[in-house]
Amino acid sequence: MTILVVARGNMDDAAWVERLRHELPGREIVVQGEPFDRRAVHYAVAWKHPPGAFAGLPNLTAIFSLGAGVEHLLMDPRLPDVPVLRVVDGDLTARMSEYVVLHALRILRQHELLVRQQRERIWLDDDRQPAARDVRVGVMGLGVLGADAAAKLRTMGFDVAGWSRTAKVLPGVACFAGAEGLTPFLSRTDILVCLLPLTPDTAGIIDRSLLGRLAKDGRAGGAHLVNAGRGGLQVEADILAALEDGTLASATLDVFETEPLPADSPLWGHPRVTVTPHNAAMSSPHAIAGLIARQIRRHEAGEPFEHLVDRSRGY
Amino acid sequence: MTILVVARGNMDDAAWVERLRHELPGREIVVQGEPFDRRAVHYAVAWKHPPGAFAGLPNLTAIFSLGAGVEHLLMDPRLPDVPVLRVVDGDLTARMSEYVVLHALRILRQHELLVRQQRERIWLDDDRQPAARDVRVGVMGLGVLGADAAAKLRTMGFDVAGWSRTAKVLPGVACFAGAEGLTPFLSRTDILVCLLPLTPDTAGIIDRSLLGRLAKDGRAGGAHLVNAGRGGLQVEADILAALEDGTLASATLDVFETEPLPADSPLWGHPRVTVTPHNAAMSSPHAIAGLIARQIRRHEAGEPFEHLVDRSRGY
Repeated sequence: MTILVVARGNMDDAAWVERLRHELPGREIVVQGEPFDRRAVHYAVAWKHPPGAFAGLPNLTAIFSLGAGVEHLLMDPRLPDVPVLRVVDGDLTARMSEYVVLHALRILRQHELLVRQQRERIWLDDDRQPAARDVRVGVMGLGVLGADAAAKLRTMGFDVAGWSRTAKVLPGVACFAGAEGLTPFLSRTDILVCLLPLTPDTAGIIDRSLLGRLAKDGRAGGAHLVNAGRGGLQVEADILAALEDGTLASATLDVFETEPLPADSPLWGHPRVTVTPHNAAMSSPHAIAGLIARQIRRHEAGEPFEHLVDRSRGY
Repeated sequence: MTILVVARGNMDDAAWVERLRHELPGREIVVQGEPFDRRAVHYAVAWKHPPGAFAGLPNLTAIFSLGAGVEHLLMDPRLPDVPVLRVVDGDLTARMSEYVVLHALRILRQHELLVRQQRERIWLDDDRQPAARDVRVGVMGLGVLGADAAAKLRTMGFDVAGWSRTAKVLPGVACFAGAEGLTPFLSRTDILVCLLPLTPDTAGIIDRSLLGRLAKDGRAGGAHLVNAGRGGLQVEADILAALEDGTLASATLDVFETEPLPADSPLWGHPRVTVTPHNAAMSSPHAIAGLIARQIRRHEAGEPFEHLVDRSRGY
């Protein structure tokens, strides 16, 4: 019942091995690159693994992603045909909603303008700021993350809609679905929040065509983009063009086509772009190791896995 | 049944006269400085009036404040002994909570640090940001504004306590009260949010002694102050000293001892001070004129006034 850990990118094998040893005492936990018995590996725990890392493990039972996304797994053509399990972590969900609400409120309350006025020692207490109920936020992606963000945006008073691939019902949220729902959804959106999974269907979805359909008549001083999903969802050249031609008033981006964002990207220095280093919702080893241990114990007690990825949908 | 409007400071007679005419068609609405029959005035609508403006109105029935605060009325020694009525406006309450949640999240998510990193093109995705549940927000003042802010901070996941003059009970909020509750409240507070009314008891309450009792061991990188109450609550020299000696990590101030904040105030340029121009929660003439009209109609139908100020408490 050995567990193989392959954590790359912004994660680190050692931290995960330590947490998993704590949660699953007595188990053998191994990492790629050191010798281990490939036949003994029953579980793999993965983040941005090198393709093929999980081939040749004849007794592999399941692969756990260390984050909410699983595209790093599904893009591996040699991924074994075993259950792939996502992390659904209340902590990660709460962190993502903190990020979304922070940036929606920052846009609503014209924080950048007030910072510039402070720098110039300008006291201008006019009342041009709209109220939250006059600003329409549209959340793309209504899974666990999107549903929580939508509910918290509602609590803050925003006029909230959502869009998802398949129809959803969320209290107080105008829900749109599918290709035919996209244009009506976008045309009533002042602040677009993207929390979609990255799949072949969603890759590059935030492009010139989509941005051009956002509301033009809103109370938030133009249309705003907040992408905290995946960098592969966005076409950065189109975002920059939309900022230049007035289609977009601002972009707040936690994710990028290439991460870390290259030092020569014009996004870094654009006055209406906020760049955060893919830290909207970090996976906490503490919480996630506990969730993986729980899934393993459930499985070995004969219960089904939870949060199973549907490979045909890609999430 | 004439209504006298005296709106000064950041308000403007004309806008209020127009809104009140709309809400109370057929009434005579007059402003100070123009001739009118003093005996005909039954109601006064006031913001930062010159002291004595409401003396010599023999038939005055009630005075309406145009904002949540009433200290501008109660400091007038010639204020007639008639009911003084506060505005309790859901819109104003929602605006204040937007401000409080925005700035609490901005502190939590280290927005200033990320802005500096963006300016230097530094991609640093370490996970030193605490989660909201690890950060203790303390709300001083648990009236309508404080209770709403506390509830929304709770929704965002913060560990919330409150302090008020008299004991209150709020779901999920650790409530402290009175002089003996102040030190225990402050010692468990990482982010202090001040929404107190300005009264003789609260004037200058945010001083060196109070700031020195805030938590020193918290997860938010030190103690933070957010004052969106009244400038008279704070001693600005003490806030600056506390920022210098490390007692305070940051101050976010919407209100000041003197407003507009004088151009030579060191608060403007302090790197850990955020200055906003007393716009956390502006009174909307649209909403408030409707509330005043409703109170007048209720009164004339024989019903009691709502939101009556207790002059002995000062709010």
